[in-house]
Amino acid sequence: MCATCGCAGDEPAGHAHEDGTWHEYDGHEHAGERDHGQHTHARTVTLAEKVLARNDALAQQNRDWLRERGILALNLMSSPGAGKTTLLERTAADLAGELVVGVIEGDQETALDADRMRAAGCQVVQINTGTGCHLDAVMVRDALTKLDPPGGSVVVIENVGNLVCPALFDLGEAHRVVLASVTEGADKPVKYPHMFRSADLVLVTKTDLLPYLDFDLARCTADLAKISPGATVLPVSARAGDGIGRWYDWLRQVLAPGGTPLPRGQAPGPHGPESPDGLRPR
Amino acid sequence: MCATCGCAGDEPAGHAHEDGTWHEYDGHEHAGERDHGQHTHARTVTLAEKVLARNDALAQQNRDWLRERGILALNLMSSPGAGKTTLLERTAADLAGELVVGVIEGDQETALDADRMRAAGCQVVQINTGTGCHLDAVMVRDALTKLDPPGGSVVVIENVGNLVCPALFDLGEAHRVVLASVTEGADKPVKYPHMFRSADLVLVTKTDLLPYLDFDLARCTADLAKISPGATVLPVSARAGDGIGRWYDWLRQVLAPGGTPLPRGQAPGPHGPESPDGLRPR
Repeated sequence: MCATCGCAGDEPAGHAHEDGTWHEYDGHEHAGERDHGQHTHARTVTLAEKVLARNDALAQQNRDWLRERGILALNLMSSPGAGKTTLLERTAADLAGELVVGVIEGDQETALDADRMRAAGCQVVQINTGTGCHLDAVMVRDALTKLDPPGGSVVVIENVGNLVCPALFDLGEAHRVVLASVTEGADKPVKYPHMFRSADLVLVTKTDLLPYLDFDLARCTADLAKISPGATVLPVSARAGDGIGRWYDWLRQVLAPGGTPLPRGQAPGPHGPESPDGLRPR
Repeated sequence: MCATCGCAGDEPAGHAHEDGTWHEYDGHEHAGERDHGQHTHARTVTLAEKVLARNDALAQQNRDWLRERGILALNLMSSPGAGKTTLLERTAADLAGELVVGVIEGDQETALDADRMRAAGCQVVQINTGTGCHLDAVMVRDALTKLDPPGGSVVVIENVGNLVCPALFDLGEAHRVVLASVTEGADKPVKYPHMFRSADLVLVTKTDLLPYLDFDLARCTADLAKISPGATVLPVSARAGDGIGRWYDWLRQVLAPGGTPLPRGQAPGPHGPESPDGLRPR
């Protein structure tokens, strides 16, 4: 997050190690430590904390609003081009008649993804963020009002394609679903741990391309088990259909019988009796 | 950039259209327009502008420092997993004996890429940004001091994998090189225009995977011609070697005879007599 990374400080907000590695301070964890006369930096951290605290409060209002109406909201996040929209297109088509899926689309520019999801039969609200790097709870609050989803439905919030900033912003979702495409390489969970740590479900996507890549699925799964031990991990190809049924099973499981979503933190985990038949991270 | 997108405002910083599209205001373009009593929002914009202005001033110092020493700095940016490190590994190996390449590695966590580039024979400084989403001019200033690159060398700054935030931060580079992997889909230039607009060279990577994808190279190139008409566009596969020679030719061309980099904005364009034999965006 730009406002926490020390870029307004007079001095670099970090320290060098002997091996040439540079460790940048995290504004949240080290705010007190860094508050030694660098006024600009301290102000940056304070504002960032205020932004996040305000966002969290609004996200809780969104969560309450959704729970009262029996609507399940998912926050779908990934790098650009990991296959979020393709997954949603197939899901909307395959589960038409079973689930009502509404979509909030986040992109810097264009309504291309909104057009695709409307063509797939969904109600959609597009949010264009301009230079913005993530959706926040205010944007989602207003999009929910406009979308007006029916009780018992699923609202998928397709975040801006970005494996960094969206991890910090709670939107009021019931669950976080993070996509990692096999084309990106197996090292992404360890290189972008904040995003993967926050995931309830990790979909390892585009598995139909595995024969043409050097992707080490075992390594990726083992890393995820360390970084995000509570997350379910499912390999899937939305194009070929491999593993797609397990994603649908996961969706059905997080939808309680009456359409009431489970509160955050009560997702079916990898060890529970209701666990989907996915890869288990431990 | 988090601090410009209005997330601290009391009201959503945008407006809805009849078709359900939501347009978010850009803090820079609409700062005056938005300054109507929403104190928190106004303060956010002001701070963001200060952060960027301060960064720009420091970036200019970096640029002067590099020019005085005859060092060519490139800012390498892309989504996570678009192949930045693989391209650099091959470049360092193929051009060993011709170019001295130093590397500044930006990642949220790990020194995996630094290890790879050291194994490829390069001097490397790793920057770990924690929750941070981009490198800034202060980080690069200190990394340059530590790297201490020789005159006539090339310094490649491998930015944090993020197609959004790094676009806003000048690091003092001579040129910006943006990678777009064919696995991400052809719509990325129009969906993330700020990044592509800032590019001097766009490398369309992983072209060895084209036979297994629905990627429309003509559409991508046509979109780039509109968004970034001054940029050279080169399709390349660092794994298979397709097009790699044209990337090396581009590198040789931006290195002036005495090793003095061209000032920003004087990169060999797509229409000049010295244009590399790449795809021409017009």
